[in-house]
Amino acid sequence: MTRGDIVLVEDPTYFVFLGILQSHGVQCRAIHLQEDGLDTEHLADTLRALHRSGQLPRVKMLYVVSYYQNPTGITTSPQKKAAILRVLRQFEKAAGHQLYLLEDAAYRELRFAGPDVPSALAVESDPSRVIYAGTFSKPFATGARVGFGLLPAELLEAVARVKGNHDFGSANLLQQLLARALASGRYQAHVTSVAKRYAQKAALMCAMLRAHFPAAVQWTPPQGGLYVWARLPQRVATGFKSNVFKAALKRQVLYVPGELCYADDPTRPKPRHEMRLSFGGATPKDIRLGIQRLGQVLSQVAGRWARA
Amino acid sequence: MTRGDIVLVEDPTYFVFLGILQSHGVQCRAIHLQEDGLDTEHLADTLRALHRSGQLPRVKMLYVVSYYQNPTGITTSPQKKAAILRVLRQFEKAAGHQLYLLEDAAYRELRFAGPDVPSALAVESDPSRVIYAGTFSKPFATGARVGFGLLPAELLEAVARVKGNHDFGSANLLQQLLARALASGRYQAHVTSVAKRYAQKAALMCAMLRAHFPAAVQWTPPQGGLYVWARLPQRVATGFKSNVFKAALKRQVLYVPGELCYADDPTRPKPRHEMRLSFGGATPKDIRLGIQRLGQVLSQVAGRWARA
Repeated sequence: MTRGDIVLVEDPTYFVFLGILQSHGVQCRAIHLQEDGLDTEHLADTLRALHRSGQLPRVKMLYVVSYYQNPTGITTSPQKKAAILRVLRQFEKAAGHQLYLLEDAAYRELRFAGPDVPSALAVESDPSRVIYAGTFSKPFATGARVGFGLLPAELLEAVARVKGNHDFGSANLLQQLLARALASGRYQAHVTSVAKRYAQKAALMCAMLRAHFPAAVQWTPPQGGLYVWARLPQRVATGFKSNVFKAALKRQVLYVPGELCYADDPTRPKPRHEMRLSFGGATPKDIRLGIQRLGQVLSQVAGRWARA
Repeated sequence: MTRGDIVLVEDPTYFVFLGILQSHGVQCRAIHLQEDGLDTEHLADTLRALHRSGQLPRVKMLYVVSYYQNPTGITTSPQKKAAILRVLRQFEKAAGHQLYLLEDAAYRELRFAGPDVPSALAVESDPSRVIYAGTFSKPFATGARVGFGLLPAELLEAVARVKGNHDFGSANLLQQLLARALASGRYQAHVTSVAKRYAQKAALMCAMLRAHFPAAVQWTPPQGGLYVWARLPQRVATGFKSNVFKAALKRQVLYVPGELCYADDPTRPKPRHEMRLSFGGATPKDIRLGIQRLGQVLSQVAGRWARA
């Protein structure tokens, strides 16, 4: 990635990744998200528009959080993964280079409902365009900070070099610890128990949302991951400077304002009426209290819509 | 750091840092090194020349490995630190911004001889231009990979943001481990014992060098750190493609070719006749064998000078 490159992202997407792109001067184009993953027609339309305006050669890849997406909880279906890769291939000649799919599978193992979905790696035979990013931290121990990647061979040297410049090698102790946990079966046993605990907390959060949130707020019960994505009526702002955010913070409740998860993209206004709620680190008691207070904030601060 | 910036470095310097600068498109200017640290007259001359050619505004900082330098083992004296900071201040107005000294103190605690030298932080009162980079890994456990920095306040936000984008926070487990080792006193006890072991290995390496290396090779017994810097006669190349390197590798002896430690700098030819020898990871047995074999290589492969 260098200044002026374009990366396609889901709309919304993982906001920390947006920060990384921004720090490198990389631009984004946001692709609509549907219940089963990217809107592939919008993907094709966007690539066509970029081609027409001469910007297609600047497009380097598409970033997708494919399992229990951060922030929406959406999982990309296998059919969508195949369709995404087909669309990308169609535009490679015009782009003048490979168009990669970066599949961020951070939450894959934190599954509580539904089947495990094959990764995009299963769609393609060699040579693949899929960069698969996995982690042992999220499902096993968030402080462990060891992940892995499966890369097309032509990218390996560059990625290894950048990683070496960033960290000069992952911490040996943590790698040893994970290698032993994986070999002994403790890893899998712990992931199973962690996923079960998250499932209970997700169910609790949804029950609290039903009981305490105004009826006009929409959300989908997650099938995995760490988040519930709550959609308020369009005119109710949730950003750092909004009344909702300030009132929530005053009651010691913190959420991620939805607008942080939307890339700067001149082709659409940025939605400002959503919130990412996390049940990951919170205790059941905190979840109960937090959603109750947030419900009160929405009823009291957000105005008449909430009481309608 | 952005493309086109200039960073001043010691000549030679830590080669991994050079790789990082290169990956960001940052250029270097190399400042002569003396027995007690940078040649401050050459530093001033270099800054003057950059000013004359209009490039001074591109200069952002000076990087110094101030204790038992990697690769030469040289320690910068407190007088030199004060002089370096004075010179940098003199050129700030012409540069149009602060000129920072990045003091990399990675080896400070691995001291076997001589007094502990104050850091550059001790020279300056607020506002300081010193960025002090320390680590717990090198002196305590190389796999721990936890370090720290002391920064001028105005840099904190940018540095925290870059670090967040790189690693999203240091591994919690390793920080906990180090915090406990520091609080209990185990850290200091272990550092003392590690430094003693390195001192023994350094003494062994120097004894072996005296016994097995040709008389024309020069080196200085280190007072700390992990390295001996061996200087061969100028015409004997030590790079990856040299006869010396290839013959050494054939006998399973690996050293860091000196030329890797020199920045690309159009104002001087790159020296190619030195080698960095490390006693850090090697066992005493390996040190004995390695230096013996390397001495044989130099005597046999490098030509008549070695036998003279």
